[in-house]
Amino acid sequence: MDDSRPVATHTTRLRVRYSETDQMGTFYNSRALEWFECGRTELLRHVGLPYTEIEERGLHLPLVEAHVEYRGRARYDDELSVATTVGLAGRARLRFNVEIRQVAGGAEVARGYTVHAITNTTGKPTRPPTWLVEKLHLPNGAGLAGTGE
Amino acid sequence: MDDSRPVATHTTRLRVRYSETDQMGTFYNSRALEWFECGRTELLRHVGLPYTEIEERGLHLPLVEAHVEYRGRARYDDELSVATTVGLAGRARLRFNVEIRQVAGGAEVARGYTVHAITNTTGKPTRPPTWLVEKLHLPNGAGLAGTGE
Amino acid sequence: MDDSRPVATHTTRLRVRYSETDQMGTFYNSRALEWFECGRTELLRHVGLPYTEIEERGLHLPLVEAHVEYRGRARYDDELSVATTVGLAGRARLRFNVEIRQVAGGAEVARGYTVHAITNTTGKPTRPPTWLVEKLHLPNGAGLAGTGE
Amino acid sequence: MDDSRPVATHTTRLRVRYSETDQMGTFYNSRALEWFECGRTELLRHVGLPYTEIEERGLHLPLVEAHVEYRGRARYDDELSVATTVGLAGRARLRFNVEIRQVAGGAEVARGYTVHAITNTTGKPTRPPTWLVEKLHLPNGAGLAGTGE
Repeated sequence: MDDSRPVATHTTRLRVRYSETDQMGTFYNSRALEWFECGRTELLRHVGLPYTEIEERGLHLPLVEAHVEYRGRARYDDELSVATTVGLAGRARLRFNVEIRQVAGGAEVARGYTVHAITNTTGKPTRPPTWLVEKLHLPNGAGLAGTGE
Repeated sequence: MDDSRPVATHTTRLRVRYSETDQMGTFYNSRALEWFECGRTELLRHVGLPYTEIEERGLHLPLVEAHVEYRGRARYDDELSVATTVGLAGRARLRFNVEIRQVAGGAEVARGYTVHAITNTTGKPTRPPTWLVEKLHLPNGAGLAGTGE
Repeated sequence: MDDSRPVATHTTRLRVRYSETDQMGTFYNSRALEWFECGRTELLRHVGLPYTEIEERGLHLPLVEAHVEYRGRARYDDELSVATTVGLAGRARLRFNVEIRQVAGGAEVARGYTVHAITNTTGKPTRPPTWLVEKLHLPNGAGLAGTGE
Repeated sequence: MDDSRPVATHTTRLRVRYSETDQMGTFYNSRALEWFECGRTELLRHVGLPYTEIEERGLHLPLVEAHVEYRGRARYDDELSVATTVGLAGRARLRFNVEIRQVAGGAEVARGYTVHAITNTTGKPTRPPTWLVEKLHLPNGAGLAGTGE
């Protein structure tokens, strides 16, 4: 493994749905967490590990913490870019950092992160297995002997 | 069983959440189906058959059809009454009729219905078992011999 | 205007979000109405009349009725096609018919329709103006003299 | 004002809706922010300042930050208690701390907070006016002369 390689990162796009607005005319706050999920899903697909496949391999990534800063407005039908980067948070957790911007103009809409446990099918925390370390470009030292499959 | 007994019916109340509004300042249309679900849940609890218990007894009630007529506005924090009545729709389906009104003033907000299959745990349609017929006051002729548990 | 021209129709694609699933492992029923909205939004953009522009021209299309038939399963991350067709329903209403299918295999997931009033900014029902009739390929006879803008 | 008075706090209850579950069988993560909103709404009503009234008085409380820690499971129809406490975060912001627990057994489900700007109708940040300071039991020094009505 190579410390200098870039972390896994990916940008996807989506449009604000009418169902995601609220009476203030911007998006309702909890939608940000749903867009964070879209970012994670597309990053994982992008690196060749769709989340459905991760689950089929017996790993789960339950959410343990989420943080959002609301930075700007986004209205119905605005096109947004969701840029997601993944890294380790401790030895058995993943952290996805997310930045959401307006495609037109680039104004920031929201930023934040989610922290996920890495567990087996019985819910027991586990270190990230080698295939996950490799695909997600996690730093050296993760996925040590005995912690993989 | 007695044909003249009243059908199972129940009214519950809820308040419009900010998350349920949209940029028009009223509730987003799909929330009506979520409120219909609240009505079903409380009716079933009211007759002594919480939906979790129905599932524990091996029955599922998957939705096969839904219909909503939007009749009036409801804004953030408005208190609504959800009146639900259940009956048979054919031999292996239930139909819940719902009417949603403003508690203050009584103006109608939405009405409609959902139709549910009655299935066992493998998804096979089944006639309503006797305990379901009894609790829901379904009409005579439902729950014939051999169709129960 | 030409009676034989095709009605306005459009197909868009989306993926089932994790947030849209429920404990049965398929999509929660009210999500269908949100996907219907995605279909309408993209059809209107496709014909050159984004809904935001319709509102800027002083027209609103509030939902007055919705109907959904649930025809098959769709799981997290399944890619779905949403085929939408628009027509008149009476003189001052639009009807969008929608059919949702699995992209892989083509199995039907849901079908239904929504009916929308056509109103001005004060909520008064109005016949569809000529520009709307033209763009949506509505049938002859709609948008008669005096009913436009 | 009296420094020793208790902060404004309130506990409300809700049940997990089927629409709030996901395919893991517990609640989808973004629902926690919607439950936080229920907690805020009921706290404000409890102290005699329904949020609709705050808006009528010309104040808005837009969300600027949200944080959630997921601590335990909650399933369909589980009854939850939502305990909310409000305080100042800086000079022109409110912070609501929230703790969600199972009513049966008391197991913790989620905790976190939201931070809200205090703005006038044009979006300009403002110090909390006296009536807000009084009703929310905010600490001495907030709501200085000239910042309230």
